[in-house]
Amino acid sequence: MRIAITGGSGFIGRRLAARLLRKAELEKLVLFDVRSLDDAVAADPRVEQISGDIANRVDVDAAIPEGTTDVFHLGAVVSAGAEADFDLGMRVNLDGTRNVLEACRRLSKPPRVVFGSSEAVYGGELPPAIDDATPLYPQTSYGAQKACGELLVSDYSRKGFLDGRALRFPTIVVRPEPNLAASTFASTILREPLLGHPALCPVREDSVMPLMSVRRLLGCIELAWEAPAQALGTHRSLLLPALSVSVREMIAAVGRIGGEEAAKRIAMRPDPAIQRIVDTWPRAVKAERAERMGLHADSSIDSILESFVEDELPKMRTAEV
Amino acid sequence: MRIAITGGSGFIGRRLAARLLRKAELEKLVLFDVRSLDDAVAADPRVEQISGDIANRVDVDAAIPEGTTDVFHLGAVVSAGAEADFDLGMRVNLDGTRNVLEACRRLSKPPRVVFGSSEAVYGGELPPAIDDATPLYPQTSYGAQKACGELLVSDYSRKGFLDGRALRFPTIVVRPEPNLAASTFASTILREPLLGHPALCPVREDSVMPLMSVRRLLGCIELAWEAPAQALGTHRSLLLPALSVSVREMIAAVGRIGGEEAAKRIAMRPDPAIQRIVDTWPRAVKAERAERMGLHADSSIDSILESFVEDELPKMRTAEV
Repeated sequence: MRIAITGGSGFIGRRLAARLLRKAELEKLVLFDVRSLDDAVAADPRVEQISGDIANRVDVDAAIPEGTTDVFHLGAVVSAGAEADFDLGMRVNLDGTRNVLEACRRLSKPPRVVFGSSEAVYGGELPPAIDDATPLYPQTSYGAQKACGELLVSDYSRKGFLDGRALRFPTIVVRPEPNLAASTFASTILREPLLGHPALCPVREDSVMPLMSVRRLLGCIELAWEAPAQALGTHRSLLLPALSVSVREMIAAVGRIGGEEAAKRIAMRPDPAIQRIVDTWPRAVKAERAERMGLHADSSIDSILESFVEDELPKMRTAEV
Repeated sequence: MRIAITGGSGFIGRRLAARLLRKAELEKLVLFDVRSLDDAVAADPRVEQISGDIANRVDVDAAIPEGTTDVFHLGAVVSAGAEADFDLGMRVNLDGTRNVLEACRRLSKPPRVVFGSSEAVYGGELPPAIDDATPLYPQTSYGAQKACGELLVSDYSRKGFLDGRALRFPTIVVRPEPNLAASTFASTILREPLLGHPALCPVREDSVMPLMSVRRLLGCIELAWEAPAQALGTHRSLLLPALSVSVREMIAAVGRIGGEEAAKRIAMRPDPAIQRIVDTWPRAVKAERAERMGLHADSSIDSILESFVEDELPKMRTAEV
């Protein structure tokens, strides 16, 4: 098993790498990103970090050499980033995805490819819960680029160039650091109070978001990766399940996990621009196709926070010292 | 009004050009294609024919110079062509479309852009009639490439780079010549018997296809082009209406328009490969959004044939002599 991960230094890519390294059958793991990291993952002798530009075909070919059996394509410019710099988004999210697919196509044995897509492919007038038949009307360039990527993953799979699965991620929490996504506040209000820091919440308490813990996401990625191609058929996009949580419930959970004091560190500071974006997002997900494949949402916001406390907080506290 | 048409030497592009030339406010009409033609359209002093490669950005920029107010992007490699040569399809249908959109984006005033998409964006398990909410599961590379183009037209429009409309064409009949599309037999069995030639029908008599005459299509293109942007909103794709006609009804119409003798020139010669493709296509279209904008299907298969007899047959008979 010889694997390549694009976005291999990113929040999800790095944690996926650590998880894959537990597999004895893993011989080689290429981590491709704009920058390398110096950490426990990097120290594993099976790991090779390659720095490069995903929009450069030569760089991507180097990251996906002959013999690669599996590719996790997670490298992307996120929503607000692709909105602020349209050309960068097109380069990384569309040209980059095409480079990854073309690099896979040239391998003598078609590899299995997991593509990280997003619920940002949905938009416009949405039903109360998005489901497997909801049409895609992306309202951001990021969403449009991800939707194009999904179409290409299905077509390359149909042609037999690779065996792809495009997973539509919900908002993943708790990120250890803010990013450029409009959804970053969900991680902020869950993370900072547990670290003893104040946090500002830009949206109303009745705002509802479909969430998933990173621990659960990694489990879903692995299940979708291991599923036989027949489980997907010709349509290779898979809406992931998610737990719908209101901001009020998030704050209450911070109180239960971190104590009343922690919850009081969250102050409401309405930001109409963020509220407007959040109001366009799906409030709930009904992912029957994924459920049938054994992929399930987190059971509660408390369990999401507990996985953060167990998996991430210890590392972060060490870093702060 | 300064207009550019890609695919300007093609079946639809050339007829659209002739129609636009009737407008007094038209100052300049660029016809961009791989080849130029020598005909009445070419003789109009407002017409400039430019030969070039749509996948070459420099060529496309030359076809869409500063001052262009409207672009009809019809240039494409059709279904069977894009299926047989994947790289050519990606180059022309995806890179080409991106070149057209980028050429438009660089103009100082965002032009109006009409993009010729296709019902090939649909596929998989289809409802009895496709409608405005049917999700896109293309089952050909052509369909996937057109679906990507549609997503980009909507996103470029949302960003204000241009004012786009992507029209999903049904099967257009009666083509004067065969093309590489699997649907070409529909034109063949309607055209050849009226010209006094035999024709082979590769599919069962109960096969049903949504059809539109080229005359009606040109009317729909013009209406969608002239419609205010608000009529479309942020979702710039528009499913066109179509008339569902069985092969049995097509043959009967040939008999009514061309005489019983003409109908007898059609021989059934089943081709399982063609039948299989046709069986995956939508059998009916419910295009409520387009209907509300005043775009309607042909009223009958007889009127479709009559428009062919009036508009095309005289030219073809002259050519045959």
